[in-house]
Amino acid sequence: MSGRKTIEPTHRYRNNDKAVGVGNAFWDLSERNGLAGIVAELDDGRPGVLHTEDGHEFTNFTCCSYLDLDSHPEVIEGAVAALRRFGVLDHCIPRSRVQIPALLELEASLGELFGSDVVAAISAGVASAGLLPLIASGHLGNGVRPLMVFDKNCHVSMAGAKPACADETEVVSCGHHDLTFLQDMCKRYERVAYVVDGSDSLGGYAPVRELAELQEKYGLLVYYDDSHSLSAYGERGIGYVRTHCPVLDERTITVATLNKAFGTSGAVILLDGYPKDALRVVERFAGALSYSQPMNTAAVGASLASAEIHRTEELTELQGRLRANIALFDSHIKTEQTGTTFPIRLVPMSDETVIEAGRRVYRAGFHVSPVFFPIVPRGTAGLRVMLRAGQTEEQIRGLCAALVEVGVPQAAPVSEQASVPEQTSVPEQASVSVEGAR
Amino acid sequence: MSGRKTIEPTHRYRNNDKAVGVGNAFWDLSERNGLAGIVAELDDGRPGVLHTEDGHEFTNFTCCSYLDLDSHPEVIEGAVAALRRFGVLDHCIPRSRVQIPALLELEASLGELFGSDVVAAISAGVASAGLLPLIASGHLGNGVRPLMVFDKNCHVSMAGAKPACADETEVVSCGHHDLTFLQDMCKRYERVAYVVDGSDSLGGYAPVRELAELQEKYGLLVYYDDSHSLSAYGERGIGYVRTHCPVLDERTITVATLNKAFGTSGAVILLDGYPKDALRVVERFAGALSYSQPMNTAAVGASLASAEIHRTEELTELQGRLRANIALFDSHIKTEQTGTTFPIRLVPMSDETVIEAGRRVYRAGFHVSPVFFPIVPRGTAGLRVMLRAGQTEEQIRGLCAALVEVGVPQAAPVSEQASVPEQTSVPEQASVSVEGAR
Repeated sequence: MSGRKTIEPTHRYRNNDKAVGVGNAFWDLSERNGLAGIVAELDDGRPGVLHTEDGHEFTNFTCCSYLDLDSHPEVIEGAVAALRRFGVLDHCIPRSRVQIPALLELEASLGELFGSDVVAAISAGVASAGLLPLIASGHLGNGVRPLMVFDKNCHVSMAGAKPACADETEVVSCGHHDLTFLQDMCKRYERVAYVVDGSDSLGGYAPVRELAELQEKYGLLVYYDDSHSLSAYGERGIGYVRTHCPVLDERTITVATLNKAFGTSGAVILLDGYPKDALRVVERFAGALSYSQPMNTAAVGASLASAEIHRTEELTELQGRLRANIALFDSHIKTEQTGTTFPIRLVPMSDETVIEAGRRVYRAGFHVSPVFFPIVPRGTAGLRVMLRAGQTEEQIRGLCAALVEVGVPQAAPVSEQASVPEQTSVPEQASVSVEGAR
Repeated sequence: MSGRKTIEPTHRYRNNDKAVGVGNAFWDLSERNGLAGIVAELDDGRPGVLHTEDGHEFTNFTCCSYLDLDSHPEVIEGAVAALRRFGVLDHCIPRSRVQIPALLELEASLGELFGSDVVAAISAGVASAGLLPLIASGHLGNGVRPLMVFDKNCHVSMAGAKPACADETEVVSCGHHDLTFLQDMCKRYERVAYVVDGSDSLGGYAPVRELAELQEKYGLLVYYDDSHSLSAYGERGIGYVRTHCPVLDERTITVATLNKAFGTSGAVILLDGYPKDALRVVERFAGALSYSQPMNTAAVGASLASAEIHRTEELTELQGRLRANIALFDSHIKTEQTGTTFPIRLVPMSDETVIEAGRRVYRAGFHVSPVFFPIVPRGTAGLRVMLRAGQTEEQIRGLCAALVEVGVPQAAPVSEQASVPEQTSVPEQASVSVEGAR
């Protein structure tokens, strides 16, 4: 072994030694306390209720199917119908050569629903991994190679693209929602592209209107992952970004999963104002979109069915039920997210008590996810709660009672609280790191 | 605009200016000649036959479903059954926290079938994007940070991980199957990891036995993507690598799509001899595997059904029919791949005639894909033909006649040719660049 070269890693954008080291500690601790590594079957009639092999029944408050569309009978039948219609899960050849009409039908339907051009992908992560390097080189955008600014809290599915982007352009990270820094960069570079969660996994929205001011003044391109608000928020479920962003043209690119509130599989890329040959560039060169397997026909059929539901009163009702459930939770337990439309609540705990609290709440019949370092900075730990349209009052009150049992203060009576507002802009959330959180 | 910083890209591992520039020329030319951008419906009874809206019917000889399992009724019914059983496409929460039993059942079944540990992923590309950086940092392997050597022809789904790997270790590329270079590196570095197609998209296999010698002598880790041979080759469809590699332990990692000959969606990671906590590292830290949507239940159900077929005589029969179809094609048209078990043939053409020839063959009722620069180096263009078990003699003879029509020489009579051998090692294929090819 003597004389062999040793390797010094650069660790400019990523560091597995750190990530695996602290991450393993997080997951091992969660698992030892029965809060991770759980295998359970879904209940036949009650959405979001599961039971383990040893008979423990629990309501899952860590599931992103915010409108319960995942178990909607029409969505499942839509999947079945497409399988029978096409007779294959996928006809295995790149779309650019030959395609069956499945994806085109879906893209047309979702394009009409969301009022944009739509390109389908198998996941938001795959979409981001393919799009961000194209934005980095200027091929998706206005042709000018931009400075890429990644919000320090952006989801890892975007942050993971930093090394690839850094081979096509300059890449920096900025403080969470640091508009001052962004404006600075806009003055110094011919073009800047900012990568950020439209809606993140810990209860916050991006400052969409403030960013639009920079977009209008400097031509800032903003790349949003709005996975947590699609369907759950906005008319016909267009999501938070598209509801509040006045700059829906080539300066705004949105990606969102169909796997959360939309209730199916796959993802959509939402583009406005790009000419046809730019859309071709996406189909041909956005990484896996060009060479890898697409959404299968079951996902397409389910998504077509879900899209139909989005066109009806049912979607509005479901959003209303979700808001009511959020308000009900807020009436019992106060958090920093109280009063917002976001379906996620982070119930504060200390680093020392969060795991034990989570364990006891789980034993009481409610799965909530403890988040602590490295998912969030030390000192900001908590139990993450995800509200859904299909949860019953009984389930929500039960959860709140279990939280109070483990020391969470009960909220002040309802009259002292603001009700959950209709679809309006929300104040910036506390800065948290979302590394690894889904 | 004066005083604004201009950006000089490093372009160390990737270059969108080049890729998009030449790639667009390739696709535009293919499309203008009607050989790309085709939208068609699958025929109801005849696998691999499609028709366009304007009534053109064609047999698709560019489809990777080598055993026609994609349209097998049991596979489709397996998908439907799973949808009804689980009642959702996916229960949206990271597997590491809570999972329904679907993926575990699939991994157990495929683990038994392939004789390895199995971790599922939504695509081979997603698996590679997640695993390669873990190999780069030594967390998947023997703990030593290796030199990563990427075969210059390895599929872009692996090559795309170079920038991320380069932030965790040293990354180089080597000439196609350059064993001498690899041995050199093995002598100079404490550990080396080599990334290569086990079976590639232009008709070649990796030199598995020669690589095994380096694995045994120096502990070389080899990462194979065997997507083109799983199911189509080997007892119970274990594929080319696992049939011929005598080093099935932590020194060999294989990934393969389930979207080609296996007939469904998703992908598998095949690992041997890794302790449980290493498998945990994969589940927790291999990129999108930890945070992104998994294979949906339709894909799981279809894959369970396909796995059952793999356990029966039917798989052997299908492989036999595929081999017979390959031999039939070889009896008419001679290529460099003649006599090999690989289901892909590259019919040589000149750079000037390949598109027109492809167009005429398509008008005659057979879709073959013209491959030319940049998919292959200039001067090595050809029409790529993919053989499948379900193709009829009539279809194959018809294709061969159409190829002869466009100037391809007819092969010498059958008695002068070697028959397609049973499952044995094959000589190295001509060096070609497979950038962008699926």
